[in-house]
Amino acid sequence: MSLKGRLSINLATTRGSWGFKDAVEGCLRHGITAIAPWRDQIAEIGLAEAARIVKENDLQVTGLCRGGMFPAVDKAGLQANIDDNKRAIDEAVALNADCLVLVVGGLPGSSKDIVEARKMVTDGIAAILPYARENNMPLAIEPLHPMYAADRACVNTLGQALDICVELGSGIGVAIDVYHVWWDPQLEEQIARAGQMDAILAHHICDWLVPTQDLLLDRGMMGDGVIDLPAIRRMIEQAGFHGPQEVEIFSRDNWWKKSGDEVLRTCVERFESVC
Amino acid sequence: MSLKGRLSINLATTRGSWGFKDAVEGCLRHGITAIAPWRDQIAEIGLAEAARIVKENDLQVTGLCRGGMFPAVDKAGLQANIDDNKRAIDEAVALNADCLVLVVGGLPGSSKDIVEARKMVTDGIAAILPYARENNMPLAIEPLHPMYAADRACVNTLGQALDICVELGSGIGVAIDVYHVWWDPQLEEQIARAGQMDAILAHHICDWLVPTQDLLLDRGMMGDGVIDLPAIRRMIEQAGFHGPQEVEIFSRDNWWKKSGDEVLRTCVERFESVC
Repeated sequence: MSLKGRLSINLATTRGSWGFKDAVEGCLRHGITAIAPWRDQIAEIGLAEAARIVKENDLQVTGLCRGGMFPAVDKAGLQANIDDNKRAIDEAVALNADCLVLVVGGLPGSSKDIVEARKMVTDGIAAILPYARENNMPLAIEPLHPMYAADRACVNTLGQALDICVELGSGIGVAIDVYHVWWDPQLEEQIARAGQMDAILAHHICDWLVPTQDLLLDRGMMGDGVIDLPAIRRMIEQAGFHGPQEVEIFSRDNWWKKSGDEVLRTCVERFESVC
Repeated sequence: MSLKGRLSINLATTRGSWGFKDAVEGCLRHGITAIAPWRDQIAEIGLAEAARIVKENDLQVTGLCRGGMFPAVDKAGLQANIDDNKRAIDEAVALNADCLVLVVGGLPGSSKDIVEARKMVTDGIAAILPYARENNMPLAIEPLHPMYAADRACVNTLGQALDICVELGSGIGVAIDVYHVWWDPQLEEQIARAGQMDAILAHHICDWLVPTQDLLLDRGMMGDGVIDLPAIRRMIEQAGFHGPQEVEIFSRDNWWKKSGDEVLRTCVERFESVC
């Protein structure tokens, strides 16, 4: 069965060996026709060339990583972040991405005020949303695991992300990454709610290892951890999202040390046997 | 101003240098008259001797750590865990503790079924609750940070813990540890709810470091991290809990390497200046 429309590779997964061009060629060798690149990978090869490669190979871009990082210590910083997010929207449009993924940011500077940081996030998204709508680029808030609340994203549950979507209206939804949400007692009801809102824009997969050695860079390959991937997939499909599952693995000491081909071969095998 | 009734030391905090007896003597040297010991520390000195020391020094025991760890792979395991929790209740009674803290346990064996693990937890607490009530020993469910959902506790939010309290009735409440709950978007409303239920049994403090180097053993001293401790304290006091704040710091590479006296001196200083 073709992987087309079923499996996407977030190019963080092969970051240990490959930049954008090598990663695309690698994906194509393994029958994978959907990718999600990072902005630094796009910058390295150049936006026009990346867009040409996407178009020439008829690739689906399941998301551009990433916009967000809204909170700042002053108004100039907030504005700079908004401007950068508009550039990210431009890039996502050039790549014909399904969405721009937003990792919203954490506490700015030495702040301990997470309520204020969350307000900055909502205000920041509100500031870029008209531009996203004009350009028909859906914004996907990715709630991050609570262990990233301080330094990466102060939106930490699917329910919280959906509340922001409700507040801000059309043109915005969520990216559901199993790594961030698998533990949530409200997961099933919030995925169903997201479906009713037609707000599911992406479905990211990997696994939670026990023990986890590093808060950021020790994600597991599907099947090597404790996440019930088929159960979450069923919830997401029942909620009406049938886009590709996107493999996103940060793994400094394991998968990033292996060859890109070995990583992709394993992704495909595990996708078919586990997910 | 006396620390009596205001500050308690969880004896994990001085685990790097001291067992039970030395820790009590250290606390008394620093004007601290409330403690929360661990069962292994009690076992080491013997329950009768520990109880004698508590009584002789008129110590407040703000909690015994810990019961819980209910999930198991089979019925025999579940029953063994229930039996062990009853022994923990006996020990808490002997020490005249304010509550027995429950760290409820994670996924048993190779299970990926967190819904089932959560059911085992509720069933396990239900099984020991009559015995706890007979002995007038309040059970305090401690919701643990979601990063411990797999291996330590599948109760991961205050709201989820309170739902269990509602389901099971009297004799049970919650231990609120800022480390586990500070990130929760529902924190303020759930603390207020806990107050309305008269369910707050303990208030643990420490800090969340950025970056955090280890998921378990890199907690920070109050003031060294990003948690707005006064804000959470206000929520808890407004909810009607005015018991001591209990310092619980697991810190393998920092505080556990310092002398117990330096740790306690710092706890007192930071408690007065930060909390």
